[in-house]
Amino acid sequence: MALIVQKFGGTSVATTERIKNVAKRVARWKAQGHDIIVVPSAMSGETNRLIGLAKEISSVPDPRELDVIASTGEQVTIALLAMAMHAEGLKAKSYTGPQVRVLTDSTFTKARILQIDDQRIRKDLAEGNVVVVAGFQGADEDGNITTLGRGGSDTSAVALAAALQADECQIYTDVDGVYTTDPRVVPEARKLDTITFEEMMEMASLGSKVLQIRSVEFAGKYKVKLRVLSSFQDEGEGTLITVEEDNTMEQPIISGIAFSRDEAKLTVLGVPDLPGIAYKILGPIADANIDVDMIIQNVGQDGTTDFSFTVNRADYTKTLEMLKGVASDMKARGVTGDAKTCKVSAVGVGMRSHPGVASKMFGALAAEGINIRMISTSEIKISVVLEEKYLELAVRVLHKAFGLDQAD
Amino acid sequence: MALIVQKFGGTSVATTERIKNVAKRVARWKAQGHDIIVVPSAMSGETNRLIGLAKEISSVPDPRELDVIASTGEQVTIALLAMAMHAEGLKAKSYTGPQVRVLTDSTFTKARILQIDDQRIRKDLAEGNVVVVAGFQGADEDGNITTLGRGGSDTSAVALAAALQADECQIYTDVDGVYTTDPRVVPEARKLDTITFEEMMEMASLGSKVLQIRSVEFAGKYKVKLRVLSSFQDEGEGTLITVEEDNTMEQPIISGIAFSRDEAKLTVLGVPDLPGIAYKILGPIADANIDVDMIIQNVGQDGTTDFSFTVNRADYTKTLEMLKGVASDMKARGVTGDAKTCKVSAVGVGMRSHPGVASKMFGALAAEGINIRMISTSEIKISVVLEEKYLELAVRVLHKAFGLDQAD
Repeated sequence: MALIVQKFGGTSVATTERIKNVAKRVARWKAQGHDIIVVPSAMSGETNRLIGLAKEISSVPDPRELDVIASTGEQVTIALLAMAMHAEGLKAKSYTGPQVRVLTDSTFTKARILQIDDQRIRKDLAEGNVVVVAGFQGADEDGNITTLGRGGSDTSAVALAAALQADECQIYTDVDGVYTTDPRVVPEARKLDTITFEEMMEMASLGSKVLQIRSVEFAGKYKVKLRVLSSFQDEGEGTLITVEEDNTMEQPIISGIAFSRDEAKLTVLGVPDLPGIAYKILGPIADANIDVDMIIQNVGQDGTTDFSFTVNRADYTKTLEMLKGVASDMKARGVTGDAKTCKVSAVGVGMRSHPGVASKMFGALAAEGINIRMISTSEIKISVVLEEKYLELAVRVLHKAFGLDQAD
Repeated sequence: MALIVQKFGGTSVATTERIKNVAKRVARWKAQGHDIIVVPSAMSGETNRLIGLAKEISSVPDPRELDVIASTGEQVTIALLAMAMHAEGLKAKSYTGPQVRVLTDSTFTKARILQIDDQRIRKDLAEGNVVVVAGFQGADEDGNITTLGRGGSDTSAVALAAALQADECQIYTDVDGVYTTDPRVVPEARKLDTITFEEMMEMASLGSKVLQIRSVEFAGKYKVKLRVLSSFQDEGEGTLITVEEDNTMEQPIISGIAFSRDEAKLTVLGVPDLPGIAYKILGPIADANIDVDMIIQNVGQDGTTDFSFTVNRADYTKTLEMLKGVASDMKARGVTGDAKTCKVSAVGVGMRSHPGVASKMFGALAAEGINIRMISTSEIKISVVLEEKYLELAVRVLHKAFGLDQAD
């Protein structure tokens, strides 16, 4: 008998029919003697509907009030789920985040969980209840309602699992696990049985949107056993996200190929190579709330340097305009950019102990005549920026080169 | 400068456009230097939508969970209202019932308010905020979310006014006050400037659905000055509901003519006149959750009695079937009934000190050839049950007979 936290996303609870299916699934786990805590998201589309109402009132709604309204989405789901469980003959009780004292800081619309009071939940579990806790929400010290930001239900589930020292936190999604890459791009992609937290975080940050990155970080920090499963299939073990410790011989060098579209690259050319130039260039961009991804600086031979970085394509034009002003201020030679780039990354903890991964990667791309525009590496990841048209080809080539294609 | 509680019903906040209008109205009161607490209902239709979702899951949803879901309707409105007030340049903060500790008992779906903590609201008011509190909801001692039943927002508003000793509690509705009778039936109906709590309670219980009866009772008990106003008109003083104390000469004998359609009358004939017959007849009906309204028992000369009562027409057939069984058990002579009756009542505190009101009423009806089927009286009300076809005629005749028609 184990204590299991099960998180169901918006598509899994999109209709009352699907909510009944979730209740049936929970009933099967309960029948095996497990204690279950269920953490649902809002019915899909509901959070957008609520925020839409707020936008009808004000283009810049007050964040505190936005959380009051946005948190109702999950509150509806918990009650419906509890009712559906009653219909399955289960004892079940629902709680909002504030009710079980999911204590957060006061950063409305993207609050961070500080603490969870487990007393009430433990009591209900002991009485045989399935406990249904609204994801995505909590309350600050003064009792103000807060939300954790988009995808925050994953974080809620992991935090509950950590607070209650659950045996496993299961994230039910519309995919049956984490794949070596997107199967829509590479049909030979394989589902991974396990992946390390570090790899998962890199995959998540690179656009594999199976899990919210904060929840993975949280799970890693608190050593919560995290499993990704399909809510639409009854079979399958999904993908287990593990603390890296079983460094077996089978450990693959590369676990997956991640990618993201919609990248744009910008370069300030011939910047005088003086301390503080990165800050001068990126400061105004950060102030404009534009997220900068990869950053590269090459020192040239004439005492000047070329400074390149990538942003989301939607921010390209705005960023280019800002850079022109900055470049002229700092007497740089000019600004260039390319709105049509993409990023492809090989991710794997195995590369720590295996030299030559980068050269293998560059070689495979070169063999197909794919020109690399930027390179960035971390301990367990190598990313390249390419012309967008090469994205699918590059992913397929690398997937094959690193032996990730399915055996059969 | 006064402290005013303003309650806005579902139709007043039915759209974001109307919510903006409410905010504008509140801004005008605030500009006059008043402290304002606003209590909104859910956007009209929203509570039904939420209960509809619950019914898709279960035909008999758990009351505790029903309250979790139903309470979200008002939670959406409070946030939208606070945002709309910000757009008007007002400081405003929203609270759910549980947040301001509207403490109730644990009777889910029809909880009763026990206590309200005024500390937080007073602090916010002192800081210049309009405080927006969700109507219809609270939390019990264990923090479970409760709702007060349909129309409970009126009660929330009155309870807040009582707890904070507000100068006035204003109920904004889609009518501009309380009328001597329904203007759709009698075009000459007059808006009343004042009405006593007792009269208002009789009017409410008789089908004048301007205010929830519980809120009137509450206001009377705690001496809250209650005013009914139109949320769609900017002018007008509405109707003030007063504690009966200014017994001026102008005090009318009758304040209004109330009526209700959809009544059905049932009679058990020739019941042996023994102790306990009322209980034997009405017990099973109460157990079947059928509301009984008027009850009359006439003792006959042969040691038997006729026992009559009225129920809502929707319950007529079911009640008749039940009665047949009961009648045969108690060896009564038989059961008769009439599904097409109505009730018309004259209400007024003045009748206490004026004899002859009943005979005036019966005389006016007799002059029009209207046969009275049942009569029931209280200290400030005389009700008659009539054939349904006479309803409009009877209301018009009585309205005129008691001098309620407009002067011009």
